[in-house]
Amino acid sequence: MASALSGSGERLGGDDRLTFFNHYFEETGLGVGDTSDGSQVRLEVGAPGKPELEDCIDILNKATQHRMQTENGYMFQYGCWRGDCKFRLQMSKFLTEEYDDEVDCEELMVTCGATNGIYMVTSLLFNRGDIVFIEDPSFFIALQIFRKDLGMKLVPVPSNDEGINIEEFDKVLSEYQRASSHQPTEERPYWSMVYLIPTFNNPKGTCLSPERCKQVVTLARKYNILILCDDVYNLLSYIPGEKPEDKPLPSPRRLFAYDKKTDPDYVGNVISNGSFSKILGPGMRIGWVEAPRKVLNVLEKSAYTWSGGGWNNYTSAILASALELGLVSKHLLMIRKKYRDNLDSVYQTLIDDMPSGVKIIKPQGGFFIWIEFPENIDAGKLGEYCENEYGVSFAHGKNFSTTGSFRNCARVTITYYERDVLVTAAQKICAASKTFCRG
Amino acid sequence: MASALSGSGERLGGDDRLTFFNHYFEETGLGVGDTSDGSQVRLEVGAPGKPELEDCIDILNKATQHRMQTENGYMFQYGCWRGDCKFRLQMSKFLTEEYDDEVDCEELMVTCGATNGIYMVTSLLFNRGDIVFIEDPSFFIALQIFRKDLGMKLVPVPSNDEGINIEEFDKVLSEYQRASSHQPTEERPYWSMVYLIPTFNNPKGTCLSPERCKQVVTLARKYNILILCDDVYNLLSYIPGEKPEDKPLPSPRRLFAYDKKTDPDYVGNVISNGSFSKILGPGMRIGWVEAPRKVLNVLEKSAYTWSGGGWNNYTSAILASALELGLVSKHLLMIRKKYRDNLDSVYQTLIDDMPSGVKIIKPQGGFFIWIEFPENIDAGKLGEYCENEYGVSFAHGKNFSTTGSFRNCARVTITYYERDVLVTAAQKICAASKTFCRG
Repeated sequence: MASALSGSGERLGGDDRLTFFNHYFEETGLGVGDTSDGSQVRLEVGAPGKPELEDCIDILNKATQHRMQTENGYMFQYGCWRGDCKFRLQMSKFLTEEYDDEVDCEELMVTCGATNGIYMVTSLLFNRGDIVFIEDPSFFIALQIFRKDLGMKLVPVPSNDEGINIEEFDKVLSEYQRASSHQPTEERPYWSMVYLIPTFNNPKGTCLSPERCKQVVTLARKYNILILCDDVYNLLSYIPGEKPEDKPLPSPRRLFAYDKKTDPDYVGNVISNGSFSKILGPGMRIGWVEAPRKVLNVLEKSAYTWSGGGWNNYTSAILASALELGLVSKHLLMIRKKYRDNLDSVYQTLIDDMPSGVKIIKPQGGFFIWIEFPENIDAGKLGEYCENEYGVSFAHGKNFSTTGSFRNCARVTITYYERDVLVTAAQKICAASKTFCRG
Repeated sequence: MASALSGSGERLGGDDRLTFFNHYFEETGLGVGDTSDGSQVRLEVGAPGKPELEDCIDILNKATQHRMQTENGYMFQYGCWRGDCKFRLQMSKFLTEEYDDEVDCEELMVTCGATNGIYMVTSLLFNRGDIVFIEDPSFFIALQIFRKDLGMKLVPVPSNDEGINIEEFDKVLSEYQRASSHQPTEERPYWSMVYLIPTFNNPKGTCLSPERCKQVVTLARKYNILILCDDVYNLLSYIPGEKPEDKPLPSPRRLFAYDKKTDPDYVGNVISNGSFSKILGPGMRIGWVEAPRKVLNVLEKSAYTWSGGGWNNYTSAILASALELGLVSKHLLMIRKKYRDNLDSVYQTLIDDMPSGVKIIKPQGGFFIWIEFPENIDAGKLGEYCENEYGVSFAHGKNFSTTGSFRNCARVTITYYERDVLVTAAQKICAASKTFCRG
């Protein structure tokens, strides 16, 4: 089913979110989550909610004071290419603990958020017209960066609840590699890449199974491609511990860790692209790439990185203090518990109130619940109806597809509003679904 | 003399600076300007000095406190595509006052520094392989972004002390336009661009004369190209007022203002790409583009900007307070006076002590003094000698050229060190020059 899509201007959807941000932030300037009279609840928004962001005020205040006390001006200068040393050190400690898996400081580079990571990796390591393999469905804005901004060709590969279909992927890789005339160089080591969201996938919330993680790495090595993992939800696991009051367990092992340096055929094929946008605040514009040294080498020796002196030196220096003071870990635990409760409540509401034939996937982390209506239901029309009648909107499944699939699907957030608002909105979606499914 | 240079990996030089930052920031972590025993003075460094950066600690502390007092969490959310509204409003006031020329808030967009502005404009508005016209000499790292990172073809155009040679530019534009098959679209409105540093040029310190500003705009309209102005030094004018104690006058009018919207043939051909890196601290990674609305439209509607929710929302929100409190204006006035004094002293030293036949251009603003040794002098060899014998290094003129020109030239900073260090270093360069020129 794979077909190359050219870099034309067609939007993959998401205009609702576009209009939403435009309306709320640009025009009214109401600020985060201020839905004023509450008449419109927009469950398509993938962003932290107002209380979580308010919490950041205190965190950044404390971190700024802490850093400034010992600061000599260094944070205001052109920085190291890989980013503030203290930040990278603190990050490796923080990630090692939160992942429960070792993260090497020498494999980290600061970015100006995951978007910047995607753009930098893609524009520096690949050429316009090169192929990016993608899961179908996948995160629509990333697809637009590849296709619209950077003129890459997208080749969708089907996926199921365990992730990308390995047999199909093997087949298209073989087919496209034969057609490629790429000669690997130090600066362009791969002829193609695959963009994956292996952990708490956007939109589906699912995780790539350990078996498939191994298989994907094997394929990447076999065909010499890069795996760019959008790992922005990895720290948001709600997997229960032994007792209900325990801290949720870490998320499943990130794909990066499956590309083991001790393997005899290791060459370095995986990038883990992380961000503080989902766990602290998107406005910080701070992220990191965890990548093989040969990839970091290309990124850090680019004129792009050189000219600016690394990425967001100031903000990352402040965050180094936030990490050192344990403020990020504390905040993260708080939001994981809160989002887990939101998830449980919204999921239960959907399970209880949805008409029969509707499949709801319960994720174990992340921002979203994915709903599959019966095949004959157009979730876009249902969304319109729900918005008009109930004032509740959600993301339409087809927006996440480059093949026009998932028309019967929807994605709802569990983060942007407080639990009572989310549950009421879920009830309204269920009511709309009942009416709509009836005819 | 124009010739297209392909996007191969050849470095244009500047390895000294690369090594320097690597040494001082990455390896020793000594921090800004800490040359420890003072045995090496590196006048190639184009960065603010330690005291100026220390001043930023106070500014950012105050601004953070101010902003946080009235903050509702908004600054931590995905932002407007063009950037924090308060910041853009404060910026238009600040720039209008400092330029003594109107800057429209609606023509501003926040960037993550001038480098980000260059990269975003070039990668979004142009294709790999497109032509970028450049002055010869020009800022070498920008040239590498174009050529090495983004695979553009560079076409150098000669310039003299008044800026780019208009006749020559007309000729090459005509020649290359004929060969172009570009069809203008909303997203790719220009077939080519010229990269200029019209105000306090890097490396020469000169300004494009008003007459040439008009001519360049006329050519841009005639041939439908974009003018990307690196305007990072525009706020650093040292032009004396009536009395010596007066605030220095504003810099000559920026090129952007010559592209008048009231002109009958106005279409919008100029971008002013600004930054806080030279006037506050590079580590902030905050800049702005002032651009025609049709260009902003492409930038802000890119998936790149959409996905991240604008650029450096948090830092720009803090800077909005710094601007509102007048802290930036105050700091700027302080550094303009300080750098002017540095410039006067270093220039006088060079004039007094250089052997005959050496031409020194005194700039009226910016970061650098450009020195032209007699044609038979290799300034690279002189630099090596000066570094070995006197512990003073500077940037070699040929690093700023894509044509191998300016081998007899050198660029020295007037900002990175305190005045006494700069003057002593200048004396040493003069001494080395005397010995070296004698043979």
